[in-house]
Amino acid sequence: VPNMTAVDDQNNNYSFFNESLPKHRLMTPGPTMIPERVILAMNRVIKHHKSEYFSKIFEEVRDGLKQIYKTDNDVLIFTSSGTGMLEAAVQNFFSPGERVLVVNTGHFGERWARICQVYGLTVRVLEVEWGSAVNPKLIEQRLSEETGKDITGVFVTHTETSTGIENDIEEIGKIVRETDALFLVDTVSGLATSRFETDTWGVDVALSASQKGFMCPPGLGFAAISERAWLANKKATLPRYYFDFAISKDNMIDFQTPWTPAITIIYGLVEAIKIILEEGLENVWERHNKLARAMRAGITAMNLTLFPINLAPNVTVVNCPDGFTPAQIKKQIYDRFGIYIAGGQGRLKDLVFRIGHMGYVDKIDILSVIASLEIVLKEGGHIFDSGAGIRSAMDVLSGD
Amino acid sequence: VPNMTAVDDQNNNYSFFNESLPKHRLMTPGPTMIPERVILAMNRVIKHHKSEYFSKIFEEVRDGLKQIYKTDNDVLIFTSSGTGMLEAAVQNFFSPGERVLVVNTGHFGERWARICQVYGLTVRVLEVEWGSAVNPKLIEQRLSEETGKDITGVFVTHTETSTGIENDIEEIGKIVRETDALFLVDTVSGLATSRFETDTWGVDVALSASQKGFMCPPGLGFAAISERAWLANKKATLPRYYFDFAISKDNMIDFQTPWTPAITIIYGLVEAIKIILEEGLENVWERHNKLARAMRAGITAMNLTLFPINLAPNVTVVNCPDGFTPAQIKKQIYDRFGIYIAGGQGRLKDLVFRIGHMGYVDKIDILSVIASLEIVLKEGGHIFDSGAGIRSAMDVLSGD
Repeated sequence: VPNMTAVDDQNNNYSFFNESLPKHRLMTPGPTMIPERVILAMNRVIKHHKSEYFSKIFEEVRDGLKQIYKTDNDVLIFTSSGTGMLEAAVQNFFSPGERVLVVNTGHFGERWARICQVYGLTVRVLEVEWGSAVNPKLIEQRLSEETGKDITGVFVTHTETSTGIENDIEEIGKIVRETDALFLVDTVSGLATSRFETDTWGVDVALSASQKGFMCPPGLGFAAISERAWLANKKATLPRYYFDFAISKDNMIDFQTPWTPAITIIYGLVEAIKIILEEGLENVWERHNKLARAMRAGITAMNLTLFPINLAPNVTVVNCPDGFTPAQIKKQIYDRFGIYIAGGQGRLKDLVFRIGHMGYVDKIDILSVIASLEIVLKEGGHIFDSGAGIRSAMDVLSGD
Repeated sequence: VPNMTAVDDQNNNYSFFNESLPKHRLMTPGPTMIPERVILAMNRVIKHHKSEYFSKIFEEVRDGLKQIYKTDNDVLIFTSSGTGMLEAAVQNFFSPGERVLVVNTGHFGERWARICQVYGLTVRVLEVEWGSAVNPKLIEQRLSEETGKDITGVFVTHTETSTGIENDIEEIGKIVRETDALFLVDTVSGLATSRFETDTWGVDVALSASQKGFMCPPGLGFAAISERAWLANKKATLPRYYFDFAISKDNMIDFQTPWTPAITIIYGLVEAIKIILEEGLENVWERHNKLARAMRAGITAMNLTLFPINLAPNVTVVNCPDGFTPAQIKKQIYDRFGIYIAGGQGRLKDLVFRIGHMGYVDKIDILSVIASLEIVLKEGGHIFDSGAGIRSAMDVLSGD
């Protein structure tokens, strides 16, 4: 077992454990692994963000994002994590005291509700038991109860990586469409991993980021903004500057950003978008679905249970079996097999572990995690039929 | 002359003009050129930002930043451009209606005043003629006039890249120290290019970013925060979340960030900080000073005049000579010599051109710009003694 001590050698390198062997495999629900083509693209020389060269790049990125968002709406790009985009969505479309409905299906729904509170909105939270998707009928009911009280925004998480669920954005969209409220969706982890149709589903504001389905390093956030949302933007009085969508839109006319953007990551994104469109968006979604089915077949065959009921295709959240802690499993899998998975988040910290399978993930990645889990769990005394996990996963993947 | 048409070849490469020859040289006041060591560092495999490996990296970056800031204060790191940090400095320390004094010595002072207005502060602007540094006595006068009216913050730009001036932060610090106001400094372009001593000079909040003196791609912002500033932070009611310094500080205890950071750029920053500390901070400042002197000797020997009076050592702002436009000069220098300089910014757009010499810049870079300018200006009919610019610059640099 490699030693965990950091060695800062004379070549200015970090030699930590797992720097070389076992190979490092990042299987968390973001950040994710980066394809070689994306890494190479990011090595390009830095060109000025106001140059004609860069504007061409930026135009291509914008057009690619529109295809992946399935939208004719404006798509804007920011130097930010996904959380910055959640905050931007609040700042840009609302005024203090406005009533909004936030659906809380996990850690990121909770975070969005918190941001709305910080900005002085009157926040109605629809609390959903963690592990379940929201029943769209409950949103309909809440909105009808609030009639006349002007709910001006409905906030929903598409795929919630803390609990592993996927909300039915299409159905919720039909309901919100019947009201005057804006429909705002956090699809930071959902976009380019699970079906998402911004325009067809009537999503007014859809937020995403570079380090999940987009297979890029973290550092860029995206926002797709409908015409209805732009009307709200004009009236919204909450303060904003760095994330001011109107300033950004003005600059996008010339394919520029108002502030210096994360140039290297945009270089990577150009390449990542090509990879996604070459595979085809439907195929990307189907790959995630199939890999998720294989993962769940393997997990359940190992006599483990899934935490969520309504499964997202980009992460598998597993109840930690008796006799183990998430931290132990995570450490063993990493130290011995180089696979970095995630523990639980927020209130689920000690109850579940999470395996990300989003973005640059293939069949062998899935089988690798399952095999590693089998060894660690078997040695730790968890009872299941040896090889059952890997056989079940292979069954799903065979023929493909 | 290479053709400007974009060619998207089958290897997924962009072949724009200047992609290969002439070589691309970025001589703008940010973003700047990236050392090979930094580029290589950014190719490292993405490790999770909550892993022990990453915490070690993050601790090293934090410690390095403190050395470069010359501070014992907290230094926080954000995924953002410099503008985001200017906004964060407003959000984190003030409440609506508070009176602040913003010194406007150029485009970035103007921007900071605008941000204060957006956030509902009562903004007093000390307008300084562009091209001059602020006279610290004027700040003293303004603060004494405002006595009893509780000016709670004084905002100053250290080196202002739009006009090419440097403000005397040390002297201003002595004056602000005599009041209860916080002293907030935008040293986005100044840090690691010109002497800056956060603690000795009494700077409460010092903002910077990765793409100037730090020789990294854009994408990271930094903030050094004094104990006095933390006290103000506790009382400040302006809304903030993504840039909430208190949340960030809490996470820094474990050398983590609350939101997913720009991991690749942090890898690069580790290496860039090493390069800076290997050269030595005093030597970095002296190199910038000497290169600036060579640049100005060359510029004035070409019968050109400098726009600013109080010169910053990281950018040279030149009055555009008769018979030329900044855009023409910029285009010629780029198309023929591969050197990308900047035009004027804001109200100086058509009046000046700007040559950045910050970060990863050496003697040959300076001579290259001057030689290119000589050729372009001579051909365009500008009258000066051929070779005078390059000879004068070489005189400054010889013996070194």
